[in-house]
Amino acid sequence: MAAVHWEYPVMVTAQMVTESATVTFDKLELDCGSTLAPVEVAYETYGALNAERNNAILVLHAFSGDAHAAGEGGWWGNMIGPGKAFDTDRYFVICSNVLGGCRGTTGPGSMNPETGCPWAMSFPTITISDMVRLQKQLIDHLEIPRLLSVSGGSMGGMQALEWAVSYPEQVASAIPIATTARHSAQQIAFNEVGRQAIMADPDWCDGNYYGGKPPANGLALARMIGHITYMSDQSMREKFGRRLRTPDQFEVESYLKYRGYKFVDRFDANSYLYITNAMDDFDLTTRGALPTLFESSRTRFLLISFSSDWLYPSYQVLEIVSALRSRNADVAYCNLEARYGHDSFLVEVGEQTELVRGFLNNTFKEELRRGNEGTRSVRA
Amino acid sequence: MAAVHWEYPVMVTAQMVTESATVTFDKLELDCGSTLAPVEVAYETYGALNAERNNAILVLHAFSGDAHAAGEGGWWGNMIGPGKAFDTDRYFVICSNVLGGCRGTTGPGSMNPETGCPWAMSFPTITISDMVRLQKQLIDHLEIPRLLSVSGGSMGGMQALEWAVSYPEQVASAIPIATTARHSAQQIAFNEVGRQAIMADPDWCDGNYYGGKPPANGLALARMIGHITYMSDQSMREKFGRRLRTPDQFEVESYLKYRGYKFVDRFDANSYLYITNAMDDFDLTTRGALPTLFESSRTRFLLISFSSDWLYPSYQVLEIVSALRSRNADVAYCNLEARYGHDSFLVEVGEQTELVRGFLNNTFKEELRRGNEGTRSVRA
Repeated sequence: MAAVHWEYPVMVTAQMVTESATVTFDKLELDCGSTLAPVEVAYETYGALNAERNNAILVLHAFSGDAHAAGEGGWWGNMIGPGKAFDTDRYFVICSNVLGGCRGTTGPGSMNPETGCPWAMSFPTITISDMVRLQKQLIDHLEIPRLLSVSGGSMGGMQALEWAVSYPEQVASAIPIATTARHSAQQIAFNEVGRQAIMADPDWCDGNYYGGKPPANGLALARMIGHITYMSDQSMREKFGRRLRTPDQFEVESYLKYRGYKFVDRFDANSYLYITNAMDDFDLTTRGALPTLFESSRTRFLLISFSSDWLYPSYQVLEIVSALRSRNADVAYCNLEARYGHDSFLVEVGEQTELVRGFLNNTFKEELRRGNEGTRSVRA
Repeated sequence: MAAVHWEYPVMVTAQMVTESATVTFDKLELDCGSTLAPVEVAYETYGALNAERNNAILVLHAFSGDAHAAGEGGWWGNMIGPGKAFDTDRYFVICSNVLGGCRGTTGPGSMNPETGCPWAMSFPTITISDMVRLQKQLIDHLEIPRLLSVSGGSMGGMQALEWAVSYPEQVASAIPIATTARHSAQQIAFNEVGRQAIMADPDWCDGNYYGGKPPANGLALARMIGHITYMSDQSMREKFGRRLRTPDQFEVESYLKYRGYKFVDRFDANSYLYITNAMDDFDLTTRGALPTLFESSRTRFLLISFSSDWLYPSYQVLEIVSALRSRNADVAYCNLEARYGHDSFLVEVGEQTELVRGFLNNTFKEELRRGNEGTRSVRA
């Protein structure tokens, strides 16, 4: 059913085995009723799957991330590796580019096999749950019966929650970080302004810019807005203050422009539209009150929020924690003192590392105990 | 020196005498070294100046406001009027459109007398201090030797501070609200994204769009970003939540678009650029540490911030309060519990009214006492 194309040879770094691959699946049925056929997934793995196949952790990237989570330039390189929070000496870490993305997984920039042209805005509407369903195909393909953990920040946290709700038997634990069970009006509003910026760019051409000039101004603008929301007032004051870059330009202005236009080189504007829409539409509570969703969950949870994160404020994580606690779920929660705002889960990882390391260690012990009990009950 | 053109006849409402006028001054020397000659100021007044000419209050508008502060559609109509915080039965309230504006006062959309064309981007750089120097001309023109108070929120608060620092003898009191002595990196960043949105619009044409199509998309985008920052997470949740306007559009998305494009009808994109630059450049501390600026001030201060205002957080107002207190200035301060974010000073005016009313009452009494003492000392 799945043909695997190894894009790069297996690389053995000094300390960490890294694999990078793309797998093609026959099809993926979407929440909107459409079917994508075929569908490609780009992913990377770090470390080795053990013989028991019970040490696999799926790491889920945020909105603008990709499958390259660890190693040089990896978006969570400070969290994944030998001796790090997600310790590749012990665990097998997997990260795939999300559905709708532009970094190897099928998205609006991919070829529509029926037309031979890029999908562009004819790409079907996608949801966080579609993204997770595709990840489930990948995990099945890798013959991993149960994940030791699913973890990610921001949109990655939404996917972790979706995994826990949709496949409770397949996830021993979940670590949703700086995230929410549903976007607030403010979160939707910031995404919407980004979308409007892209669509107001004449180079967007209703999404049909492939092969031509991409809507660079619009996408850069959207990214600039994003960057402000990812930082905190404090971290911006510390990083830029009122320092001037030129007599007519503040340092912070030059930084935002630089980051905005740099983003254009690696991200597709239509993916921006589709993925932010998926985030905005995500709302676990449409499937029932949060406590009922976790009614019979035996998944262990570690949730983390950050004091200076005003884009995904801690009350949103607390809402999930309260729901889990009301059902006596196994849940740990910490609101970490941090200065870097929403970006803290990517850059201020000291305490986060301690929390995740301990939690995974206990989860792994629990899984080994569970495995032994399972073996005993089979023998009995 | 000043030729006054009454644009509208004097209007006597049921309760409040309102005048609307434009005055032309020969010239205004700017901080950048240029001179504007001539320069027009649009202003309105409410209530009557008393014989002693000591009941005048100058109200200063925020970034996108204008001279129409009170009466129907006035931006501070809930604060100015008979029996209101700025009680027009007792006080003579003045409000003028700022320099660089587009609502009657000289700005980039005005005619450059040397070319016969609109200034556009050849308009000289302006500062908050230039705005205040022009207001000083207006107050002199109205033959008001000393203002009972200067008051405004946001950029209006910056002007109030500038008045207190530049003309300490001419202001008996100042009421800066939801404001700062200098913009932070985050405040600059949000303004910069708005400016980039305008300048990325092909209809902006380097500012030369007068007589043609204005950069509506860019200006609307800038306003959408602004609106998010003026509201609070809480007020947006309460006002919009996740309610849908259509199956494909959240209520908050439709609201922002509506407000954004409505703004285009009443605001000039180049004014947006010039005025936000003036706000970003404003920094009282370049003239000395804050405490030294208020060293010998005998102006009375009432400062107000709002708990949910994350755009102009209370620590910025507290910085001013601390500076004033360190010099034993007469200063009252209140951080009001409010839910509407930065907009609170415009919409949640219950407690603000009580504070301002009491403060003005005491200030007026103090002025009368001071006046009597002045008279006595002249007699002595």
